[in-house]
Amino acid sequence: MDLSRRHVLGGAAALATAPMISTTAAEAAAPPAGKQVASFYRYKIGDIEVTAIADGTNTFNLPDTFVANKTKAEVNAALEKAFLPADKFSVPFAPVVINSGGKLIAIDTGNGPAAFASSKGNVGQYQTNLAAAGIDPKNIDIVLISHFHGDHVNGLLDAEGKQLFPNAQVMASSTEWKYWMDDGEMSRAPAGRMADLFKNNRRIFETGLQKKVTPFEWGKEVAPGVTAIAAPGHTPGHSAFVIASGSDKIFVQSDTTNHPAVFVANPGFHLMFDQDAKMAEETRRKIYDMLVAEKMRVQGYHFPFPAQGNVTKDGDGYRYFPVQWSTAL
Amino acid sequence: MDLSRRHVLGGAAALATAPMISTTAAEAAAPPAGKQVASFYRYKIGDIEVTAIADGTNTFNLPDTFVANKTKAEVNAALEKAFLPADKFSVPFAPVVINSGGKLIAIDTGNGPAAFASSKGNVGQYQTNLAAAGIDPKNIDIVLISHFHGDHVNGLLDAEGKQLFPNAQVMASSTEWKYWMDDGEMSRAPAGRMADLFKNNRRIFETGLQKKVTPFEWGKEVAPGVTAIAAPGHTPGHSAFVIASGSDKIFVQSDTTNHPAVFVANPGFHLMFDQDAKMAEETRRKIYDMLVAEKMRVQGYHFPFPAQGNVTKDGDGYRYFPVQWSTAL
Repeated sequence: MDLSRRHVLGGAAALATAPMISTTAAEAAAPPAGKQVASFYRYKIGDIEVTAIADGTNTFNLPDTFVANKTKAEVNAALEKAFLPADKFSVPFAPVVINSGGKLIAIDTGNGPAAFASSKGNVGQYQTNLAAAGIDPKNIDIVLISHFHGDHVNGLLDAEGKQLFPNAQVMASSTEWKYWMDDGEMSRAPAGRMADLFKNNRRIFETGLQKKVTPFEWGKEVAPGVTAIAAPGHTPGHSAFVIASGSDKIFVQSDTTNHPAVFVANPGFHLMFDQDAKMAEETRRKIYDMLVAEKMRVQGYHFPFPAQGNVTKDGDGYRYFPVQWSTAL
Repeated sequence: MDLSRRHVLGGAAALATAPMISTTAAEAAAPPAGKQVASFYRYKIGDIEVTAIADGTNTFNLPDTFVANKTKAEVNAALEKAFLPADKFSVPFAPVVINSGGKLIAIDTGNGPAAFASSKGNVGQYQTNLAAAGIDPKNIDIVLISHFHGDHVNGLLDAEGKQLFPNAQVMASSTEWKYWMDDGEMSRAPAGRMADLFKNNRRIFETGLQKKVTPFEWGKEVAPGVTAIAAPGHTPGHSAFVIASGSDKIFVQSDTTNHPAVFVANPGFHLMFDQDAKMAEETRRKIYDMLVAEKMRVQGYHFPFPAQGNVTKDGDGYRYFPVQWSTAL
């Protein structure tokens, strides 16, 4: 058996010069599909069925200030280490739906149908993927909101401003709810992004939706099998959740970190959207040290789909092990 | 903001004692789906559309001799490092279909419909997932077979022994084809697994399928955009492939390694199914050193779905970085 380098690798090397087989005459029996699969994924936590629902991926040019306390070169180095392109950032969105003890519970809602149109389908895929997963938003009993950023709350309304979960109670931490609905906080918000966030939240909840809001306290079971966990810093009332049934559980971290390639690997990187960056880092390190100590799986809102895995300590940061896709439930 | 350990982690710690919210009275508005998503995934290599099609996952008790030159404890240690359960092994199967320059090309075919029935759906999912991906096997022009093990060739026939790709030419390396069809080799095969493999291959190809077989040579473009690469050792004529279009390419490694958690991390581990273990390791190290040097993506038949990623050198072995799922094509 000829195992020379030329023999084993000859094919790959030859590609530089080999002409492609001519294909002008032939026509494929079947045209390319031209579209990606509906991206949803199921798993069980004890008796509870969880469905991760992709809302899409937003790719943008990397701002110089994307990580407030690091240079763009340092962010690019983290991206390169993970085989991701430099000078760009692709942030995925992965809300989950939980079928648990007689209740259908959504955690976060994605960028919303209006964003689907404006992004040409790159984000705001939640409703389409939810339908592909066989879940009717009319049947959702509870929507848990981790925090009041647009990519988590905008999916509460359709492009015309109508409620997309007409039969659901909406829940968020009392800290988060009070903060964004406080007129004093709103009046003190700097013009630009912060003022816009306040306006966006008023727009959403002043549709009548505010009457359906029930604030919750951290440390309590807020829906069957779902416990709210304090994770402040990204926003004042940012919540994580633990889904538990029997001896199994998973930590739904919301935005405790953003994309793992940059922010799990480097918990000291301060994402420009962390409102209190110091507190966000403290929260992040406490939660990740707990995940490592308990060998607990974590579902991340901004992790690449299906957006869950395990973590180990790795130097000053953490290493993310994406879960092995299960081809059966 | 109270950021004490009790506050941040109180919820997780409280789970040990907190009673679940009673759910006996309530009934879910929607029943659990009870089944996993159809597992297929699309990506582009230049102008070529590739679809990874899951055939399922086979979970079995870890044999003592699963890695011929290592103890079961050493295999368990590799599994534990990757957050996989000890004493078991879950091997996924991921054939691909390529829509390329007027031709629809399958690489390998999975465990086949007969295995679907006997495994209660755990493996042999290929035809179902192919249909979900909108691909009709009647439209497939070429089936490339990497090697003649049952999990690659059994999907050529349905449970009644009828051809599942009636309009396809079947191609494999001339070395592989000659080896399994050689009566002398068959007569010298040890009873048990090797003799059974010969019998299985005769069963499949003596249906008339042998008339559709065209052997190929390594280093040649064997279908539009697809070049065959010598990767012997796992079997005498085991082939890998490079799919290339424009400046993009991916290395379809077939069984150059089995599951990455054990066999990419530890290229010196000799899987019990490697026919010539020394040659398989030489091939593996050459190919992986090339993948690292060229920063080339790799699609693995036994990688967790969607079964592709990048690799870096990591000590004596390699570290696997699963690809970031793309929510759009």
